[in-house]
Amino acid sequence: MTDRYGELKSVAKALGVDALALVPGPNFERLYGRRFMSNERPLVVVIPTEGVPAAIVPNLELRSFDLVDFEGAVFDWRDQDGYQRAFDALADHMPLTSLAVEGQVMRVFIHHAFAAALPGLRIVDGEHEISGLRLIKSPEEIAAIEHAVRIAETALGETLGAVRAGMTEKEVEALLTQALFRAGAEEHAFSPLVASGAHSARPHAHARADAHIAEGDALLIDFGARADGLVSDITRTVFVGHATDEAHAVYDTVLSANETGHAATRAGTTAHDVDDAVISVLEASPFADRIRTKTGHGMGREVHEAPYIMRGNHQPLEAGMVFTIEPGLYKIDGFGVRIEDDVLVTETGCRSLTSFPKQLQVVG
Amino acid sequence: MTDRYGELKSVAKALGVDALALVPGPNFERLYGRRFMSNERPLVVVIPTEGVPAAIVPNLELRSFDLVDFEGAVFDWRDQDGYQRAFDALADHMPLTSLAVEGQVMRVFIHHAFAAALPGLRIVDGEHEISGLRLIKSPEEIAAIEHAVRIAETALGETLGAVRAGMTEKEVEALLTQALFRAGAEEHAFSPLVASGAHSARPHAHARADAHIAEGDALLIDFGARADGLVSDITRTVFVGHATDEAHAVYDTVLSANETGHAATRAGTTAHDVDDAVISVLEASPFADRIRTKTGHGMGREVHEAPYIMRGNHQPLEAGMVFTIEPGLYKIDGFGVRIEDDVLVTETGCRSLTSFPKQLQVVG
Repeated sequence: MTDRYGELKSVAKALGVDALALVPGPNFERLYGRRFMSNERPLVVVIPTEGVPAAIVPNLELRSFDLVDFEGAVFDWRDQDGYQRAFDALADHMPLTSLAVEGQVMRVFIHHAFAAALPGLRIVDGEHEISGLRLIKSPEEIAAIEHAVRIAETALGETLGAVRAGMTEKEVEALLTQALFRAGAEEHAFSPLVASGAHSARPHAHARADAHIAEGDALLIDFGARADGLVSDITRTVFVGHATDEAHAVYDTVLSANETGHAATRAGTTAHDVDDAVISVLEASPFADRIRTKTGHGMGREVHEAPYIMRGNHQPLEAGMVFTIEPGLYKIDGFGVRIEDDVLVTETGCRSLTSFPKQLQVVG
Repeated sequence: MTDRYGELKSVAKALGVDALALVPGPNFERLYGRRFMSNERPLVVVIPTEGVPAAIVPNLELRSFDLVDFEGAVFDWRDQDGYQRAFDALADHMPLTSLAVEGQVMRVFIHHAFAAALPGLRIVDGEHEISGLRLIKSPEEIAAIEHAVRIAETALGETLGAVRAGMTEKEVEALLTQALFRAGAEEHAFSPLVASGAHSARPHAHARADAHIAEGDALLIDFGARADGLVSDITRTVFVGHATDEAHAVYDTVLSANETGHAATRAGTTAHDVDDAVISVLEASPFADRIRTKTGHGMGREVHEAPYIMRGNHQPLEAGMVFTIEPGLYKIDGFGVRIEDDVLVTETGCRSLTSFPKQLQVVG
């Protein structure tokens, strides 16, 4: 039987630390197949390079923690006693001198609790290496992402069919959200972005309750679903009522960059190369001054994870990686266009998990 | 004109540090009235006790950050360059020796980036003091919570009207979610809990796709809405088809504890006293061995925040605080009952923000 902790122990050894700590989040979920809350009550699993793991668990969560079939010492703590004594007890049990943690997930108060329990403890940010284990998706994970993509595409189709000039961005967001849950989403992959007119030129613009969509506006919708623990992430930009010549020219440029990204993706190339191919299309256009973002980011249990598709990242792409291709052009005080697909790297190229139409669409 | 940073500077002075750092989250939102993503791209505002704040902002977010009307130095950074140089530049600009951070919000990689930029920097967990500024809710915040409560109550009524024996927990969760967004929620306040039968005895049980609700089951639903940036949090436990004598007896005990909590709440008493009154009711019952949780927690921009309503917390209650009263009894391998309301402390007592009926309800 394989050691469920085998690959994590290998990571800890490679980092030269005594142990590795996981807190609720994507790596924890992948390991145990269960979600726990990340709140004011610390729950931590510590996996030593040699020997048996130990856990710190809020007393309140003990029965839920039983479900993960954990073998090892469990130090539980009650609200009225506070959590520090559980860290102290774990420290007595496992006198570590170094520990790798998930720097993007673990919060500072847990770092402090470890430091207080183990004076002199060297705490290393092992985010890159630990989360690196999630780079290659399993067939089950790919199926879940495809499910999440289908849900998002269903919701997007319904929403675009209902958009009319005069609606507010918030109203469109509400339509989108209702459609998303009707289509079977467990939750939003992230807080959706619905931006019209000049607001669409802000890459991370949230919907405004007082912004009425006007004839001729660009309308950028960027959102996703979570299904079976994995996410989708899709953007389409449409035009309301009509599209100007400038809109057409910008849109065609972004679409061409998007298609170049698909064509450039295959096992053996690098994240840098894909971004370089995509951004080069935008740079060669009359709209080069509107470039604001890299090509994309990996996704899976998190909406943003490795590999980051950007120049300078010479990480080789491997079959089973999943990431977004989302070139965009953003004219400040004008409008923005982004077209985002989710793709799976294969041995011979890439398979688009997104199939929503990409030609310029006028709605309303 | 008042200094928007005045109370934060006072907190930093009281903590004896040079400055205070905020990252996207509830304190940041309260200060600037805007949400930013908490993701792999650090965005941090540093507020010194004397002088002008400075910020580290991902280049991608600069235009959105403009909307917060920030006055002070902004150190932006691009993905291809990484964020460390922005921390280094801020360190040159503001040579801090000590810094208070939000320990429950800031993640370890930002802690490490500050530590790398400012060797010897003393990083203090100021969570309690910084978030303490959110204890007393403004009239606008109270109105938003009431709005979020009404949304949740509408959704709960619709959902309970549709529950039937034979449905799965996941199906009930999907009904609830659709109703919640139809009713106007911006998002879930947290991932909802829908638990039937023995699963209801786990205080934080998530819905299972393979768990069919049976005749006679307890069905516990704990969820909330986010509206205008603030949340509601409500639990009701109903019985499907019929309720046993034991169910009635346990339910009446929990309801009595809940009502005792309302009666015990007023400005001038303490969190300890409210919890003690509530738990004493449960302890005096034949079901004392089923006590697993404290009475409640504050809520506002976060679902769990101060004041924590538990024995040992001698924090005085003040008018304008909002928290949950949610006593429960949980029989392992049996069933659980929890009845949760949201209340506002007033000078003379408490006002329940929740008005959903609390008598034992048989559904389906």
